[in-house]
Amino acid sequence: MTNPIAIAIHGGAGTILKSMLTPELEAEYTEALKQSINAGYQILKQGGSSLDAVEASVVSLENCYLFNAGRGAVFNSIGKHEMDASIMEGKYLKAGAVSSVQNIKNPVKLARAVMDQSEHVFLTAAGAMQFAKERNIELAPDDYFFVQHRYDQWQSVKDTDHYNLDHVAEPSDKKFGTVGAVALDCFGNMAAATSTGGMTNKKYGRVGDSPIIGAGTYANNTTCAISCTGHGELFIRSVVAYDISCLMEYKGLSLKQACDSVVYDKLVKIEGEGGLIALDAKGNIELPFNSEGMYRACVNTTGEIFVAIYK
Amino acid sequence: MTNPIAIAIHGGAGTILKSMLTPELEAEYTEALKQSINAGYQILKQGGSSLDAVEASVVSLENCYLFNAGRGAVFNSIGKHEMDASIMEGKYLKAGAVSSVQNIKNPVKLARAVMDQSEHVFLTAAGAMQFAKERNIELAPDDYFFVQHRYDQWQSVKDTDHYNLDHVAEPSDKKFGTVGAVALDCFGNMAAATSTGGMTNKKYGRVGDSPIIGAGTYANNTTCAISCTGHGELFIRSVVAYDISCLMEYKGLSLKQACDSVVYDKLVKIEGEGGLIALDAKGNIELPFNSEGMYRACVNTTGEIFVAIYK
Repeated sequence: MTNPIAIAIHGGAGTILKSMLTPELEAEYTEALKQSINAGYQILKQGGSSLDAVEASVVSLENCYLFNAGRGAVFNSIGKHEMDASIMEGKYLKAGAVSSVQNIKNPVKLARAVMDQSEHVFLTAAGAMQFAKERNIELAPDDYFFVQHRYDQWQSVKDTDHYNLDHVAEPSDKKFGTVGAVALDCFGNMAAATSTGGMTNKKYGRVGDSPIIGAGTYANNTTCAISCTGHGELFIRSVVAYDISCLMEYKGLSLKQACDSVVYDKLVKIEGEGGLIALDAKGNIELPFNSEGMYRACVNTTGEIFVAIYK
Repeated sequence: MTNPIAIAIHGGAGTILKSMLTPELEAEYTEALKQSINAGYQILKQGGSSLDAVEASVVSLENCYLFNAGRGAVFNSIGKHEMDASIMEGKYLKAGAVSSVQNIKNPVKLARAVMDQSEHVFLTAAGAMQFAKERNIELAPDDYFFVQHRYDQWQSVKDTDHYNLDHVAEPSDKKFGTVGAVALDCFGNMAAATSTGGMTNKKYGRVGDSPIIGAGTYANNTTCAISCTGHGELFIRSVVAYDISCLMEYKGLSLKQACDSVVYDKLVKIEGEGGLIALDAKGNIELPFNSEGMYRACVNTTGEIFVAIYK
């Protein structure tokens, strides 16, 4: 096993300032990021697949109440938790995605089941939940998703037209609550996965970039694996994840050049706040974001772990 | 008004052979395609916007019982009509999309309303329908969508696990029922729109490429406007529409070279059957498909109209 392995995760980007987090909360976030990155890295180290690794890392973040995905998903306008997720592998370009699902403990597992056990790529709403039930995907009752600070956020904007991008009480403070992972395994295969609870108080079955292959998630062994977190509407219109792949494949840019171009130039010009995690076939890792902070961690090809929150 | 104007439409691709259509039915399709292309072209000729033109052309196809969109949408596994649509404009890269909506007379108008009247790009299912009702988007009762040959198709596969990609009785015969339009207006702005009823007997809220910005629909004044019709899952995984744009922008290919590469090489390699309509900023038009036929029409920059069905 001399082939490089590497993995990176994110737990959302946005207005995340040191002044906003108590030392205790910061320690809790750091610990959660470490647990998630280790969950995926152990799989890679034991010769497992990048698909299993990204799924495990995202499951770990979905199970943590701190992040806006799975258990910690925000409340929508009617007090429910409506979640989106997607997963893609870079060898055959297979993918699975779900949008607007409720009471699914781990939406990323449902996306994986869509990829592995259906002829389809993308299932939505009630139909996706029917598929989940028939495939024995683990469900969870509403109270599993009850997290006090999420509820307080919702109460602060409920019955208004404010959407909150994530878990800060002030609507003007933006945080893009999404989690994701990208990995390269010892077979040279890459994978990417993304999961989110969307926007607090969201209405109308709004879908962001997270379940959109090419926008929030993309993996291709010849170029890169990408998982995004940001202002979903702008990320969809910019087809962010596939754009990075195309800049590498068609324009010959390096992973870093492609990420810099998209995150620090193209997205900034349209006020597309957010960030992404990226990996190439050599195991190079980029974690660019144009917001104040991004919950992030990685283990590079030499086995070094890196965990960070702020700029 | 010396700037070029041009428009192209499609009504789906697939196993469409001359032997399968009676002369009467062929004439009916041809007439419907002419009506649709004229609806959009008249708007362009009068100095209207490409957005209004693609919307008008798609509405015309949605209102025709022959095509799998709007009125002619196929039956899903529970005998309902579940539709997807999207629209995008190439100047500011604004976009709107809906998936899994029911009883919406013209899903493309709902996608346009999402673009023009919401902060969002993509709404799904019940939430999208709530948005439609609040915005007074025209609804239609179930019987408006009742078309005998659609019903017969559904009856032939109902209670089986067969999905039909469109309106042929034989599951092995494939036709990808989708409609779409791309246009260039006298202001140099391009737009694209796509609308579909999906697959006969589809389950689980399956979403294809039609409502996915970058996959089924894309428009960008610096490159091209694209609307796809084909095996949606493969078109999503290949991010088809944005791929053509990137091949032009990053690799310097012409519209024709980019279309040929994607439709006749990349998609063929993964058995991604289907086609697309494409337009560039000079008004060049491409209508490539790798299936037996594609309902299609265009008016080029010299005002010539072209209508065709078979290879």
